[in-house]
Amino acid sequence: MSNKAKLRIIPLGGVGEIGKNMTAFEYDQDIIVVDCGSMFPKEDLLGIDLVIPDASYLVANKERIRGYVFTHGHEDHIGAVPYIVPTAPAPLYGSRLTMALIENKLREHRIPDLELNTVLPRQVIHLGCFSIRFIRVNHSIAGAYALAITTPVGTVVHSGDFKIDYTPVDGEVTDLSALAAIGDNGVLALLCESTNVERPGYTMSERKVGETFRRQMINASGRVIIAMFSSNVHRLQQVVDCAVEFGRKVCFVGRSMVTVSAVAMDLGELVIPDEYLVEIDDLDRYRDDQLVILTTGSQGEPMSGLTRMAFAEHRKLAIKPSDKVIISASPIPGNEVGVSRVIDQLYRCGAEVIYDAMAEVHVSGHACQEELKLMHALVRPRYFIPVHGEYRMLWQHGVLAESMGTSTRNIILPEMGQVIELGPNSVQIAGEVPTGNVLVDGLGIGDVGNAVLKDRKHLAEEGLLIITFAFDMTRGTLVAGPDVSSRGFVYVRDNEDIIAGVRDLTLRIIRSYGRIESGDWNNLRNRVKDEVHHFIYERIKRNPMIIPIIENVVNM
Amino acid sequence: MSNKAKLRIIPLGGVGEIGKNMTAFEYDQDIIVVDCGSMFPKEDLLGIDLVIPDASYLVANKERIRGYVFTHGHEDHIGAVPYIVPTAPAPLYGSRLTMALIENKLREHRIPDLELNTVLPRQVIHLGCFSIRFIRVNHSIAGAYALAITTPVGTVVHSGDFKIDYTPVDGEVTDLSALAAIGDNGVLALLCESTNVERPGYTMSERKVGETFRRQMINASGRVIIAMFSSNVHRLQQVVDCAVEFGRKVCFVGRSMVTVSAVAMDLGELVIPDEYLVEIDDLDRYRDDQLVILTTGSQGEPMSGLTRMAFAEHRKLAIKPSDKVIISASPIPGNEVGVSRVIDQLYRCGAEVIYDAMAEVHVSGHACQEELKLMHALVRPRYFIPVHGEYRMLWQHGVLAESMGTSTRNIILPEMGQVIELGPNSVQIAGEVPTGNVLVDGLGIGDVGNAVLKDRKHLAEEGLLIITFAFDMTRGTLVAGPDVSSRGFVYVRDNEDIIAGVRDLTLRIIRSYGRIESGDWNNLRNRVKDEVHHFIYERIKRNPMIIPIIENVVNM
Repeated sequence: MSNKAKLRIIPLGGVGEIGKNMTAFEYDQDIIVVDCGSMFPKEDLLGIDLVIPDASYLVANKERIRGYVFTHGHEDHIGAVPYIVPTAPAPLYGSRLTMALIENKLREHRIPDLELNTVLPRQVIHLGCFSIRFIRVNHSIAGAYALAITTPVGTVVHSGDFKIDYTPVDGEVTDLSALAAIGDNGVLALLCESTNVERPGYTMSERKVGETFRRQMINASGRVIIAMFSSNVHRLQQVVDCAVEFGRKVCFVGRSMVTVSAVAMDLGELVIPDEYLVEIDDLDRYRDDQLVILTTGSQGEPMSGLTRMAFAEHRKLAIKPSDKVIISASPIPGNEVGVSRVIDQLYRCGAEVIYDAMAEVHVSGHACQEELKLMHALVRPRYFIPVHGEYRMLWQHGVLAESMGTSTRNIILPEMGQVIELGPNSVQIAGEVPTGNVLVDGLGIGDVGNAVLKDRKHLAEEGLLIITFAFDMTRGTLVAGPDVSSRGFVYVRDNEDIIAGVRDLTLRIIRSYGRIESGDWNNLRNRVKDEVHHFIYERIKRNPMIIPIIENVVNM
Repeated sequence: MSNKAKLRIIPLGGVGEIGKNMTAFEYDQDIIVVDCGSMFPKEDLLGIDLVIPDASYLVANKERIRGYVFTHGHEDHIGAVPYIVPTAPAPLYGSRLTMALIENKLREHRIPDLELNTVLPRQVIHLGCFSIRFIRVNHSIAGAYALAITTPVGTVVHSGDFKIDYTPVDGEVTDLSALAAIGDNGVLALLCESTNVERPGYTMSERKVGETFRRQMINASGRVIIAMFSSNVHRLQQVVDCAVEFGRKVCFVGRSMVTVSAVAMDLGELVIPDEYLVEIDDLDRYRDDQLVILTTGSQGEPMSGLTRMAFAEHRKLAIKPSDKVIISASPIPGNEVGVSRVIDQLYRCGAEVIYDAMAEVHVSGHACQEELKLMHALVRPRYFIPVHGEYRMLWQHGVLAESMGTSTRNIILPEMGQVIELGPNSVQIAGEVPTGNVLVDGLGIGDVGNAVLKDRKHLAEEGLLIITFAFDMTRGTLVAGPDVSSRGFVYVRDNEDIIAGVRDLTLRIIRSYGRIESGDWNNLRNRVKDEVHHFIYERIKRNPMIIPIIENVVNM
């Protein structure tokens, strides 16, 4: 059997991290890609807008890519499509809502001519040697699928993101019987998400949140304003159902809330009686107790609907004391401070605020330990590869699999870019492909890297000092400067002695050379940098970036 | 009754925020200050080391300050002492451990000659017209006090930070009977901390953590490494007791762990049999299963003991697969990402990791709702002022007080700097004093403000572009440049066309002036800034800081 005749699974993102999920499946001449997600930059990626996977392996093998298959339409599964798919094009497959969200995204990026295909639950598609069956699962977005990928060496199940909701809003429980049937036929490997593997028990049903909405709306005497992720269409539906019950009109506020609700209504995934939908400009035609406002900003994002309303920065809406504001989310790690800032401001506006510490305003979209165990019990894989999680979560998911009877040597804790090679009875790590974070900043993709980020960090923490001077090189004499400018350093007015000291020091250094030759420039620049650095550090224990600039005067 | 004959309570920090607690109490010619804390900068305070309260009101009235009174020795209660007390000096009062920690801090800052006084539980001190009784409370540091401050208009109780631990490690329960007696005598006002007001029920006893340590040590076959806050002396004692029980030696690693454990041992607050204490250099004389290492880094701090061990950056210690690492803390909001990074790295090292998602490795030091109710029930104040919390917590603490029978108009939600004026039967807000965040950066105190921070933020997110050129002003001609330098912007090599474009554009702008007069400089600089900004934004949707620098050539 040649090397080619094995299945190669290559995680290109989403392992050892939360976000930018993307996995390549490869057999002989065929490649399929599962998901193509982005993630938000962590705080050390200063000024970066978005992080996407390094797709150079896909680009290098683009003629072998048979298709992109999507589990669902969250950004961490579809966000990199506009950046990656055009560089390695192939048809795209996913649920109705997933494809509508991708289509929307491609339109915003003005990318035409990609083949988008909608796939129904239990449908099977064939891409090269792969057959892929789409299996309905519950998640915090409608139209979420697990995948059963049949390959020449066996079937691999990819869980996607899932939970098991026995009372889902649309009545469609995770397709346990399909998973059971696939398990009965024998599964080579399971790739299963690990987001909530640290949590014991079960994730509550999405209905819990609907009950909270109802309880809160019964006794609200003013407007009810609810902030949540727009993509949770089932939760939107629960708000709408409550609103209709209590005779309140519904208004969508915030860019993604307006866009996604329109997409979902078009597809019939979100149903609102016409007379209950109002535009933001028509709000003043109704009493406060006739209104529900659905908006963005559940993560405290500075430009979101709720944040702008709270800080009186929204053109058309402001929070008032009679409002009841429900923040229907938990802060994603890293967002706690922003969320807390918005909640405080809402209280200062006098509003009543309901958030996760006070009521069941949110349930997770991910399986807890007992649900993960059910997945393992149904699928009963020979090999187990935990995905979608920080390293500690993958590790604990391995422990969980072991407790279910999977033997340790059949559990692979993947690292990004590793080539996991599977035969019917074998697994090994067979090399690596290029992988990592590609940074998107403005229109630039990948043109900000470590050196630039290191400079940004230095500038952010210490500011800078520019020292300029000019030489007449024909005579080797100083003809202008040294002049000192600073930004982000200290109040210059209170520190004129420091600035004057830097100027004097630079002048002394220049004079020590006597006649300056152009061959001295590098040495001069380095001496100015070093000595000014010491001068400042000794005096005020700071370390601004020091940039000496020499001008060469000609044409006199 | 004159204005002076009322009690004025002025929160100078710690309300509407967590951290930098400081409150002034003023009657006629006397002022006392309760606590003098610092806080860590939030992430938008780029490059700032520490935040302290604006103490200009105290400095302006320094001859009236009779003393500084401390509830306990955490940084958010004593951290600003070296910066503020020398500018408005007066004697300091607190428990043995508190004063030892302050003394230590003053020594590090080389500040001599402050009068430090140790006060015992139930002791009363007299400062001007104020009598202050110190009341033992449980908290996550030894030697914590609530205060009963008797003033000419009545008694005010300040809770400090507290919990009620019926089985504390040192056997000393919060002094409920003292609080009850004070309550029986009539209390004008209660200032009570609000940290855990969002949590129902009770905070668990510190003993719970000791039980977890014991359970974890029983079955550990290698080293046990425990990261925690060094100031939690009772928790250190529990580790030591466990270590002694299982015949393990104890080693302290990390600067604050070494310092604080030494201070606590000196005072007898931490008791370790001599033969159980080992130095880091002697560790190799013992087997792994004979060792417990106590270290810093429970918040994922980059320079802490645990982080450096995990990332192989510690000179003397590294994590190995046989280690069991216990992170005995919950991440403080904002630290989640850092903590998670360290846990992942510990798993990658192969160690077993026990953290808050998995076991009871931490209990809070603050009262939950039922404990707060007990405080209110014992003290039964006429007026209630919630302190130590974000605005939403103060608000909810107000709701809790109302539910206990305090009338709404007797509850004051304080804002920083407000002067709360209390008579025996009256409360009003009587003006404001200067207040806010003073930023400490290196040796500078207050010399970094909003303009500098705004520049740092811009530099952090976008980088900068410096455009230099020189004129011969006697002839009004360009004699050097324009030259373009960038930092933190993009890879210059990949973007030479952008840099060349900026140079050409600047040249065109300069030439459009014909002969340049020095009166044109401002206009020229602004045009270069604006037009280069547009040029770059149009091309790559970025917005670096643009700094045009004109050199004036003389002496030719």
